[in-house]
Amino acid sequence: MSERAIGIFDSGVGGLTVFKEIERLLPGEELVYIGDTARVPYGCKSPATVVRYALEAANFLLDQEVKMLVVACNTASSTALPVLEERFRIPVVGVIGPGARKAAAVTRNGRVGVIGTMATVKSEAYTRAIHALNPDIQIFSKPCPLFVPLAEEGWGDHPVALMVAREYLEPLAAENVDTLVLGCTHYPILKNTLRKFLGDGVRLVDSAQETAQTVSRLLKSDDLYRSGKPRPPRFFVTDSCENFEKVGGSFLDRRLDGVQEIQLGFM
Amino acid sequence: MSERAIGIFDSGVGGLTVFKEIERLLPGEELVYIGDTARVPYGCKSPATVVRYALEAANFLLDQEVKMLVVACNTASSTALPVLEERFRIPVVGVIGPGARKAAAVTRNGRVGVIGTMATVKSEAYTRAIHALNPDIQIFSKPCPLFVPLAEEGWGDHPVALMVAREYLEPLAAENVDTLVLGCTHYPILKNTLRKFLGDGVRLVDSAQETAQTVSRLLKSDDLYRSGKPRPPRFFVTDSCENFEKVGGSFLDRRLDGVQEIQLGFM
Repeated sequence: MSERAIGIFDSGVGGLTVFKEIERLLPGEELVYIGDTARVPYGCKSPATVVRYALEAANFLLDQEVKMLVVACNTASSTALPVLEERFRIPVVGVIGPGARKAAAVTRNGRVGVIGTMATVKSEAYTRAIHALNPDIQIFSKPCPLFVPLAEEGWGDHPVALMVAREYLEPLAAENVDTLVLGCTHYPILKNTLRKFLGDGVRLVDSAQETAQTVSRLLKSDDLYRSGKPRPPRFFVTDSCENFEKVGGSFLDRRLDGVQEIQLGFM
Repeated sequence: MSERAIGIFDSGVGGLTVFKEIERLLPGEELVYIGDTARVPYGCKSPATVVRYALEAANFLLDQEVKMLVVACNTASSTALPVLEERFRIPVVGVIGPGARKAAAVTRNGRVGVIGTMATVKSEAYTRAIHALNPDIQIFSKPCPLFVPLAEEGWGDHPVALMVAREYLEPLAAENVDTLVLGCTHYPILKNTLRKFLGDGVRLVDSAQETAQTVSRLLKSDDLYRSGKPRPPRFFVTDSCENFEKVGGSFLDRRLDGVQEIQLGFM
């Protein structure tokens, strides 16, 4: 048993899709979330910079005495996970492993597409993770840098999103993938558009649910479940709270308030 | 006379459009440029955060002993200029004033459109600056958050850019503006697309040239021209240099190397 909270971090609001699944699956746990909104996005930045930012966010969460660290950001997971695992003693859960497991389990023809930020695709983290499970699966990757700004603009279902999706995904469709990993926590917002272009034959894998399952398994195996009475989650951001409360509230379908602004970068 | 360099800063590569005009107009000056690529973009962040970042970049340039500070970023100019002017003794030049002057000078029907990031449009800095010159001019503003990612994706002339431009600019076209201020240093990359949608009847105002003229006038009035033999410019970035050298090289139409990586945020 452990009464301590679970720490979750992302570059911004996208990780709230992961937060939401953890909260749904584990309502007894206390959750602390930090979004590094003053430095978002991570996806166009270099691995060294992303590792530095991830360490700063992780250190902040460690100061909150969390019992587990969830990296709810594909770019940070693909780049910084080994450093975080080496540096900290508490369990660290990223979103790549869970997404890879699900993709390997659901593909029928062994042809899997992976989309993400430039940094995530360049890292080849999904390719390695899927191949570690099944080296025969063929992976077709494509960075989709415009999907995050489209999601943040609220244009997930806009005709522009469909046109962009066509441009990015035509090559993957031509490769006849039957599974597409949404390798960025923002991408579920474009699900309808992706389905419209790809059709029902392609399974969309979003790692949020699978990540929550992994968190639950780890709490069980390490005997870390919380038993006390429920506590409300705490949210922190590095830029002003206003925009996070607005956009994050729409991600979670509820009013978000009491978000606190802090500064990272002064380790 | 002053042999010291001119310091130029931006959130990333966009300010190189201003750098280029200053270099062309004032080939005898030494230029020091810093792009805060580890925290780009500024346009979606809060005024307080942008002011903090601008102060850090300005302090770095002051450490390089520059004789003048050019804020080659619309978001930082619209938000942080008063603080920078108050804090530092050297002349500070932003891009808003020059763009506003040009717009006020060229409009014939007194109806001016202003496009920029969310932060720039919210600040109403262009409206104030244009009205200070001519209160009768009517201003129609519109934030265009997708233009920067489109420019960075290299899709300035892509059909998607035209579709996005139509969506953003339809209301301004309906207001019959005859002048459009490109209130973001990235937007000149979409010039062809904007012309295609707006037609030749609308004058596009990009503040880079006008800013260079302002810098030149100030050097003259304050007797700050450099007389020594030419020195190559120096470039600094806060994220890795690789991407800046590639994208920045295409902005300047020449090979960029010797870019140095530094860290801001530890004032």
